[in-house]
Amino acid sequence: MTYRAPVKDMLFAMKALANIDAVAQLPGFEEAGHDTAAAVLEECAKLNEGVVAPLNWEGDKYPSSFHDGKVSTTPGFKDAFRQYAEGGWQGLQHPAELGGQALPKLIHAACTEMVNAANVSFALCPLLTDGAIEALLTAASDEQKATYIPPMIEGRWTGTMNLTEPQAGSDLSQVRTRAEPQPDGSYKIFGTKIFITYGEHDMAENIVHLVLARVAGAPEGVKGISLFVCPKFMVNADGSLGARNDVHCVSIEHKLGIKASPTAVLQYGDHGGAIGYLVGQENRGLEYMFVMMNAARFGVGVQGIAVADRAYQKAVQYARDRVQSRPVDGSMTSAAPIIHHPDVRRMLMTMRAQVEGCRAMALVGAAAYDAAHAHPDAETRAQNQAFYEFLVPLIKGYSTEMSLEVASLGVQVHGGMGFIEETGAAQYLRDAKILAIYEGTTAIQANDLVGRKTSRDGGAGARAIAAQIEATEGELAARGSAASKTFAQRLGTARRAWLDAIDFIAAQGKGNPNAAYAGSVPYLMLSGMVVAGWQMGRALMAAEDALAAGDEAEFMQAKIATARFHGDHVLSRCTSLRDAIVDGADSVTALALDAF
Amino acid sequence: MTYRAPVKDMLFAMKALANIDAVAQLPGFEEAGHDTAAAVLEECAKLNEGVVAPLNWEGDKYPSSFHDGKVSTTPGFKDAFRQYAEGGWQGLQHPAELGGQALPKLIHAACTEMVNAANVSFALCPLLTDGAIEALLTAASDEQKATYIPPMIEGRWTGTMNLTEPQAGSDLSQVRTRAEPQPDGSYKIFGTKIFITYGEHDMAENIVHLVLARVAGAPEGVKGISLFVCPKFMVNADGSLGARNDVHCVSIEHKLGIKASPTAVLQYGDHGGAIGYLVGQENRGLEYMFVMMNAARFGVGVQGIAVADRAYQKAVQYARDRVQSRPVDGSMTSAAPIIHHPDVRRMLMTMRAQVEGCRAMALVGAAAYDAAHAHPDAETRAQNQAFYEFLVPLIKGYSTEMSLEVASLGVQVHGGMGFIEETGAAQYLRDAKILAIYEGTTAIQANDLVGRKTSRDGGAGARAIAAQIEATEGELAARGSAASKTFAQRLGTARRAWLDAIDFIAAQGKGNPNAAYAGSVPYLMLSGMVVAGWQMGRALMAAEDALAAGDEAEFMQAKIATARFHGDHVLSRCTSLRDAIVDGADSVTALALDAF
Repeated sequence: MTYRAPVKDMLFAMKALANIDAVAQLPGFEEAGHDTAAAVLEECAKLNEGVVAPLNWEGDKYPSSFHDGKVSTTPGFKDAFRQYAEGGWQGLQHPAELGGQALPKLIHAACTEMVNAANVSFALCPLLTDGAIEALLTAASDEQKATYIPPMIEGRWTGTMNLTEPQAGSDLSQVRTRAEPQPDGSYKIFGTKIFITYGEHDMAENIVHLVLARVAGAPEGVKGISLFVCPKFMVNADGSLGARNDVHCVSIEHKLGIKASPTAVLQYGDHGGAIGYLVGQENRGLEYMFVMMNAARFGVGVQGIAVADRAYQKAVQYARDRVQSRPVDGSMTSAAPIIHHPDVRRMLMTMRAQVEGCRAMALVGAAAYDAAHAHPDAETRAQNQAFYEFLVPLIKGYSTEMSLEVASLGVQVHGGMGFIEETGAAQYLRDAKILAIYEGTTAIQANDLVGRKTSRDGGAGARAIAAQIEATEGELAARGSAASKTFAQRLGTARRAWLDAIDFIAAQGKGNPNAAYAGSVPYLMLSGMVVAGWQMGRALMAAEDALAAGDEAEFMQAKIATARFHGDHVLSRCTSLRDAIVDGADSVTALALDAF
Repeated sequence: MTYRAPVKDMLFAMKALANIDAVAQLPGFEEAGHDTAAAVLEECAKLNEGVVAPLNWEGDKYPSSFHDGKVSTTPGFKDAFRQYAEGGWQGLQHPAELGGQALPKLIHAACTEMVNAANVSFALCPLLTDGAIEALLTAASDEQKATYIPPMIEGRWTGTMNLTEPQAGSDLSQVRTRAEPQPDGSYKIFGTKIFITYGEHDMAENIVHLVLARVAGAPEGVKGISLFVCPKFMVNADGSLGARNDVHCVSIEHKLGIKASPTAVLQYGDHGGAIGYLVGQENRGLEYMFVMMNAARFGVGVQGIAVADRAYQKAVQYARDRVQSRPVDGSMTSAAPIIHHPDVRRMLMTMRAQVEGCRAMALVGAAAYDAAHAHPDAETRAQNQAFYEFLVPLIKGYSTEMSLEVASLGVQVHGGMGFIEETGAAQYLRDAKILAIYEGTTAIQANDLVGRKTSRDGGAGARAIAAQIEATEGELAARGSAASKTFAQRLGTARRAWLDAIDFIAAQGKGNPNAAYAGSVPYLMLSGMVVAGWQMGRALMAAEDALAAGDEAEFMQAKIATARFHGDHVLSRCTSLRDAIVDGADSVTALALDAF
């Protein structure tokens, strides 16, 4: 088996850190407690370990291919997607009345990690379909929802997000695709969209494109963008498929990674105009898209955790099997499996601690999302929404940068074999690189964190989280164990470094934006480390308590050891990041432009 | 032009930091002063910019291919290699009496950077040939030298290093290839060697394989390994080529990067035995190989600098051309080239500062090598040798890890386009990954640094360098400028962190080796940052002096700005590394082996 879903680790984090028992008290989630989660995760593991994971390297070897306007996906993908949909996984978090399972995001997040660890190229198809469903749920008419969502949940159709154009990458104000109103209320759409994930493929009967475009006469910039639904095949009143719409794939990209996932260039309206329907109101497209993008950003963060865990598992296996050199402590007289060598351990522990920290952060974020949407109390909803929104750029930005570090370490553990493609370790590095780019690069996430999430409220939201962290430090310090006392110190040092950075960003944000934004990515990294480390501290206490109660000694000791490592080797990076942010802003922009 | 050799930057570092004027006073190097260096670098730049660099992406698209025991290299490589050899570049540093130019390593190092920046896959052929020449110069008989070296310098033949076997990667004690003595004094060689760079190709008439093997009855482990020369075609007494030897390429690897460079599996003796000749004495093979490996390790470090500089240049170009989003400081009302955005500047400055710091460290190391070999005073030679040997693991380990960071940032600057292979940014990341693995992984370099270079002398050598750095701090602090005063503080903080780590490693090295080696790679990274940062501080002073003298204002201001950035954003990482090394050793090995 090439992937083993970390069900036990997930359930530990869901119970001890994300408090699934509280989620199960929210209206609508009464059935979604620990036992349901355990059953769902076990089923999910089975499908992804047995069916989806074995197709990962196949997809790299035999990527999607383009011929005559059609895309053929990797052999096996179509059947796996059928099984995925038939298992009900596409509808896991969506409303029951449209065919979904209406489970909380907390459970969905764990399942998302599994399918992405199994095969990130494959998982992009359901991920984008989720995004399209989310956008339609936000803004579409009841008729549109009834038309498009059930077939997507059934896996007969899939969804896409069409934002990027050649001249408009991260900057959607430059979108030029135009929509011309027709007498029947529909629109004709003309333009070119690039980087459209699963924009064309052979795994479903129809593809539901959600497209940003401008109606003639709309305001300039982002306030003149509307959202349209534009199916590949027109849909008849009875739900059957009609004529082919005028949206065509003209090429797919040759990429560093996620090769099985077709990245399409879509041409709208080359033969008279692609028929599209307005979703929601005119000129509010960006707002709707942001709802979907926040969901997608969370999902991409989970992809980072997923790829990193897969890379970790592979590296552990190799380090156990590969015999090379005697241990430095003289404990063996002949060559040992390399897992005995301290630097290999350091690499594996870094990978493990980073994965566990980011997973904990994401699951805690998912639980906050659930409370933000389902809690009966408005004030509690608002608090959870603010917390979730603060976490999204960290989950997306930090977890994906983390996945690059981890996947690179994974190759390194394999030594020379890691550089040979057939080994499979390099694929994770190649795949991981896109995660820090799409759905908003790390810099875009950091801009969001600096601007909307920190500067706007003068750092109040960030400081409120820091106060919670300080409380956790107090709990840690009050315990008897050396591990918890040491961790309290590490977390305190990291938190104080973070507070310095928050103060700096909040102070500079408006008057001297160049200084604030010069440290935006280091600030994002620092924030991610502190928040993930905080969760590791909570995990440490939960594990100590379980250990004292006699539960699962080996598992709990591993949790403690991993938390300690996180404190010593990840949280320890925070002070340096603080220095770079607070003391280093001026030198970022000091070099004259001509001198580069 | 896709690559512009940084001749001016190199000459600045050679003069102001590596003191080429002193190198030109060494016996034998009287002609090798600044003007010679300038002329050689200009010529070298011409060839590499015009001929070698354009083949880089070609080599990635059309890698070396294997068919029926033969390897066909990328179209254009053979002709480029002919031009390279005809220009005298293969013999640049080798003795004049064997056809070389006998120039110092200082000049050679700069030329090595250029050819590797132009095309690292191509450059591996001359790099390995240099290594083979070096090994023969160290240990071969005069007859062997006369037979093999001149044709290699002429580029008619090339050289390889055959160390690795499937069961013996980093651990050469496990080498199993055997050599059977023959009545005529030759040996018959039997075994399998893997990862042999340019082990088979079509760019030269003959290939001179240097092979580690065991003579029957030799001691076990590394003390029973001998070095043999084993040509692809036997060499007649008149130097003409004779029969095909029994060494055959059976496959080449499918790799993440450096795809144009054929990585061969070589089979020795499948048809009766490959004829080889002992080089030097029996059982001293590893010792000879270490001479060659030190040269190769230095060379691989320079490859890291080279790939990083190429990635930097490409990213700068893209950042100037790509228009996207308005500047955060409101300085422009429409979308600007992304080089105006602070985070893009931060990425470019990180790339630039890392490249300049590592280049300075490598060139200073090369000058020490020259003094260690050519200085008339034995004490001075010994001091320089010790300094050079301390630097080799930093140049190799730190510069290559640095190249991974820089190449990854290079992709990131390109956003989504960076993930598209045709853009070319991803190739540098794929190519860079091998640099931290071959010729000894970063962990192997770190073991060398911890064991032979720090623990063995109780940290005395490292502390002596720290004392020199402290003197530089004093010079910086004594100057009037804010830049130099601030840099003195940054360097001092970093040096003190380094000293803590040196003390820890030296204290733990013998009694508690697991604790010392748990921090080996962080210690290597910390050492590399401090030593490179020290050179940046010296560059800052040299640039301030030149500026005061009215020289090249823009160039010198750029040197100052880059040094400042290095202090704020690279040296600032040192304290966190110190904490991980000194406070985090135990948690590296705390997790039970079964718990991974």
